[in-house]
Amino acid sequence: MNQTLQIQQHHRSIRSFSNEPVSDEMLAQIIAAAHQAPTSMNAQEISLIVVRDAEHRTKIAELAGRQAHVAQTPVFIVIVIDFNKTDIGMRKAGNTQIIHESMEGFGVGAVDAGIVLGTLITAAESLGLGITPIGGVRHDPQGMVELLDLPPLTFAMVGLCIGHIAHDAPVKPRMDIKTFRHDERYDASGYSAAIDAYDKTIMQHWQNVGRSDGTPWSTSLAPFQSVYYPAVRPVAAMQGLLNDK
Amino acid sequence: MNQTLQIQQHHRSIRSFSNEPVSDEMLAQIIAAAHQAPTSMNAQEISLIVVRDAEHRTKIAELAGRQAHVAQTPVFIVIVIDFNKTDIGMRKAGNTQIIHESMEGFGVGAVDAGIVLGTLITAAESLGLGITPIGGVRHDPQGMVELLDLPPLTFAMVGLCIGHIAHDAPVKPRMDIKTFRHDERYDASGYSAAIDAYDKTIMQHWQNVGRSDGTPWSTSLAPFQSVYYPAVRPVAAMQGLLNDK
Repeated sequence: MNQTLQIQQHHRSIRSFSNEPVSDEMLAQIIAAAHQAPTSMNAQEISLIVVRDAEHRTKIAELAGRQAHVAQTPVFIVIVIDFNKTDIGMRKAGNTQIIHESMEGFGVGAVDAGIVLGTLITAAESLGLGITPIGGVRHDPQGMVELLDLPPLTFAMVGLCIGHIAHDAPVKPRMDIKTFRHDERYDASGYSAAIDAYDKTIMQHWQNVGRSDGTPWSTSLAPFQSVYYPAVRPVAAMQGLLNDK
Repeated sequence: MNQTLQIQQHHRSIRSFSNEPVSDEMLAQIIAAAHQAPTSMNAQEISLIVVRDAEHRTKIAELAGRQAHVAQTPVFIVIVIDFNKTDIGMRKAGNTQIIHESMEGFGVGAVDAGIVLGTLITAAESLGLGITPIGGVRHDPQGMVELLDLPPLTFAMVGLCIGHIAHDAPVKPRMDIKTFRHDERYDASGYSAAIDAYDKTIMQHWQNVGRSDGTPWSTSLAPFQSVYYPAVRPVAAMQGLLNDK
């Protein structure tokens, strides 16, 4: 197995970063990797906002719902869906952009944000750095608009903590590969038994790592009983996205 | 620069694949890498459908809007948002899933689909394979539901061609990094000039590679004048997603 596959198969989220800064050179290499990632139709409708200023990070940690590790991470990258960039291109060509108003446009932007995030993760980990993705940038999206000067047609979709690792974390086991990989057709016949087994696996994992507050996977999904970041839809609409086409 | 960063910074989409099959071992390693990628709240609400059957690939190529290279690729992976998996877990814990009905849920699923896609891309390229992402699985989403036996609460979001490279492709230049990387705050002051420059760069690129049908970037965005996969919203709703919360 090559180095890249080893890194990816050993992925774990890190929540304890040292004070050592991430060098400009490392950051430039990581971002150059994400810059080359594919986007739908080469639209390049993703922008990154690199936040290193300590006060700025503290504000994001508050906006994200008091996620202290965001403030403690030397580099925080916000991944923005940027239909403002494409709109400027469209206008130059004498065209009128519509896609951003649709579910399809939001979905394309979110997939491409994810491709960039996945690329950043592997790139950072290849340099021995630790990462944690942060969905909490959607907790107070209007606060993010104001803090980051986000204009209409843009939306902060997800964030990423990057830093040197202070305390490493164990690899968290995943559910049986049969619930992830299907061949030729979707087949959920093994899901129920796999979930039962995984609930036991993850409880053993919590015990191994000394986390007494750990719960079975099926119980840990309880936040899915609600729309846990309910401001996404109204703020996206205020930004000119998602007008229901 | 390490091997992983070199691979990522050299990404290009391949549209010419040889007949050599992708070995079971290679495919297993690539999928194991994606299986370990992070998901929001460890929900693991992504499933892959690996399509290798030639007839099956031909049907997907038709559903995707006659994209011939899908039929010619030895492996096609469909990346599915799978809130059926989490729903089974939620029910086991006595809870009722709501998240899948919301924009937030669709966005989370799309981001996590993108993370998996970005991870698959780097993994496949690390083995010397070529890839092309295919948004065309959203061209006829109901056709995909029927072909892949997709139950309620699932949606085929994006696809990926993987194979051995027959004819390599040059790296396509990206717009100036200043339009991708912002520091501390969003700043579009350089966008217009960067787009002008990139329109020239991409035309030079088309000339270099002998593509007489190439257009400037700003013109190539013309499909954004419409919602080019308009069936996404209604079919997602039929699948029980996106009921407007």
